[in-house]
Amino acid sequence: MDLDLARGLSQEADSKIVLFVMDGLGGLPHAETGRTELETAYTPHLDMLARESACGFTVPVGTGITPGSGPGHLALFGYDPLVFNIGRGVLEAVGIDFELLPSDVAARGNFCTVDAVGRIIDRRAGRISTEESARLVEGLRSVRVDGVQAFVEPVREHRFVFVLRGDGLSDAVADTDPQKEGVEALAPRASAPGGEATAGLVAKWVEGAKRYLADKAPANMALLRGFAKRPDWPALAEVFKLRPAAVAHYPMYRGLAKLVGMEALPVGPSLEDSIATLRENWGRFDYFFVHYKYTDTAGEDGDFDRKVAKFEEVDTAIKPLIEMEPDVLMIAGDHSTPALMAGHSWHPVPFMLRSKNIRADECGMFSETELQRGSLGTFPAKEALPLAMAHAGRFKKYGA
Amino acid sequence: MDLDLARGLSQEADSKIVLFVMDGLGGLPHAETGRTELETAYTPHLDMLARESACGFTVPVGTGITPGSGPGHLALFGYDPLVFNIGRGVLEAVGIDFELLPSDVAARGNFCTVDAVGRIIDRRAGRISTEESARLVEGLRSVRVDGVQAFVEPVREHRFVFVLRGDGLSDAVADTDPQKEGVEALAPRASAPGGEATAGLVAKWVEGAKRYLADKAPANMALLRGFAKRPDWPALAEVFKLRPAAVAHYPMYRGLAKLVGMEALPVGPSLEDSIATLRENWGRFDYFFVHYKYTDTAGEDGDFDRKVAKFEEVDTAIKPLIEMEPDVLMIAGDHSTPALMAGHSWHPVPFMLRSKNIRADECGMFSETELQRGSLGTFPAKEALPLAMAHAGRFKKYGA
Repeated sequence: MDLDLARGLSQEADSKIVLFVMDGLGGLPHAETGRTELETAYTPHLDMLARESACGFTVPVGTGITPGSGPGHLALFGYDPLVFNIGRGVLEAVGIDFELLPSDVAARGNFCTVDAVGRIIDRRAGRISTEESARLVEGLRSVRVDGVQAFVEPVREHRFVFVLRGDGLSDAVADTDPQKEGVEALAPRASAPGGEATAGLVAKWVEGAKRYLADKAPANMALLRGFAKRPDWPALAEVFKLRPAAVAHYPMYRGLAKLVGMEALPVGPSLEDSIATLRENWGRFDYFFVHYKYTDTAGEDGDFDRKVAKFEEVDTAIKPLIEMEPDVLMIAGDHSTPALMAGHSWHPVPFMLRSKNIRADECGMFSETELQRGSLGTFPAKEALPLAMAHAGRFKKYGA
Repeated sequence: MDLDLARGLSQEADSKIVLFVMDGLGGLPHAETGRTELETAYTPHLDMLARESACGFTVPVGTGITPGSGPGHLALFGYDPLVFNIGRGVLEAVGIDFELLPSDVAARGNFCTVDAVGRIIDRRAGRISTEESARLVEGLRSVRVDGVQAFVEPVREHRFVFVLRGDGLSDAVADTDPQKEGVEALAPRASAPGGEATAGLVAKWVEGAKRYLADKAPANMALLRGFAKRPDWPALAEVFKLRPAAVAHYPMYRGLAKLVGMEALPVGPSLEDSIATLRENWGRFDYFFVHYKYTDTAGEDGDFDRKVAKFEEVDTAIKPLIEMEPDVLMIAGDHSTPALMAGHSWHPVPFMLRSKNIRADECGMFSETELQRGSLGTFPAKEALPLAMAHAGRFKKYGA
């Protein structure tokens, strides 16, 4: 839904919406059994919920499109991921929970190796360890640029986040990473008019970084790409008149939630922790995004059985959440991560919504096959929130 | 899918996509049996394929919209037919495999009859025979216009194609065909600024044609409409990074395929010929559009039983294509042509896609009724190619 339309329809109400996201929820059938991970798992509580819910599938971005975590979540938050795009640098910063200011410019950094004349040998410096990377980052913090603050934060392996903070910075700076080996790193240049001054500051930092890294190992140079500013998007509170909270343990998902104005609550790693946090904060908010990561991790690892086991763990742990009886409870996924593909995929994602005022479905279980009978059909994920808003009595009538 | 988005997502891969189009595929149930043409036909190979495929229905242009051959095919090629419009003149030229240059202006011509003072008696001259029409066309080739080349090519019955070739021509020329009888043909005029000079050239040709035809029979005048230039569309190779080939016998479909940059391979009229051509060219391309015409012809003729027989012929002939095991095999139609309506219709069109990484459907047969259980649901035909791209490993992830 267009956010202007949503803004016009939304009203406050005394109702609670819970979006429970099982990361990488959707799967593919096992060659031997013909059953997906979800269909293999014993999930009596989710199945019971399916029988009380309106069911279907979400398409996160578009037909055939495999989403990253960013677009997959933004869609479920009600933001068209083809319109609300996050720059690489911002996503990396968000992923480590770095508090970007609106005027900051962030880029994704790679430690790399170069030869004596500066030609890139390995763009990832052999994927050096997170510890080695952190040591190099520590050293890079000594590199200063007059007039601005430069932040360097470790991520994982050869990756780091680079942030410039100061007045009048522009993100119109081209990558220094040539995305191939055997050539020199590119000099920082403006990628559009207005980026020249910031490109000059980046060039100074790169010069200092080059000098510092020159005699270091196992990496002796750094590459930057995806310069971006934190997007200034309309907040859920403003558009949908919600008081939204995120119950997510991993920095990436906390960061994504904050980009749309959710308060990211402190929470432990388990689903039990999440439900405890939810309960403690029940009165303070009326929209909760609860994130569960481990289904995706198992799928990414290509571990069918572990993904099955994670569904069974969720099924047990989720019982108290179901019993809290939010006015609207959505069980959703940001994308499919079939263990058979060991990665994200484009397949539509199982979805169910329990509320009063729903039509009866014929879905006997929460499974890819059964959900094909669902009354919601296959619909864009960005429509999930409008659907929840309606069921929560939070949308006014359109027209008279 | 927006082509800019497709361009950003597409990557090369070592995989083969085959789109097999049964023209006019969809049907309606026979009053006596309650079964459609497809449901009446004995098609064990297509039924087996359905059990191994993701199934559903395509909507060629939009709900309730009956497509012509152009839009029906363009959608399956991945081009939104509401955006990518072909002018009538170009479609006629394409339909006879006339090699239009980008600077040519083409129009559809009709032979007609006029009375002594030039008022139109019959806009189609009693649908004169193709042979009579060809004789008149031959004569019209003697009509010259200074500074440009004029081509006249016979089509069928009273129809011909008129093409002007020269520098700086515009297609902003209004129809001379008033689309009614009892009035005179309209003088060629610019339909928009910039069309004046070309309208003047057309007027000169019309003057010569009028003079030549004046004493001829069974038609003594010609009308022109649908002035258009060959569209300059992005090619499949550029947008989707495919090496595409068309295996189509009829000029119209070869022409449509060429408009999106396919190489139209020489091929005989039968499906056996098509499969032989496919096999011979298997290594040279990675996308094949294979066209089968006769299901549509039978439907257009209102011949239910012949359409059934054509499905049975396809079912036998298609076995070797199924056994070639392309990475993605789509069985589709450009539109429905129910024998009961003896014409194209707006009904969604049966579709199935076989590939690895598909979810199990519950479709036991390739039939309109069974496909309603399909996991793909009813979706825009223009999404078929993106879906195939995903399954062929030819789309990158969107966002991080």
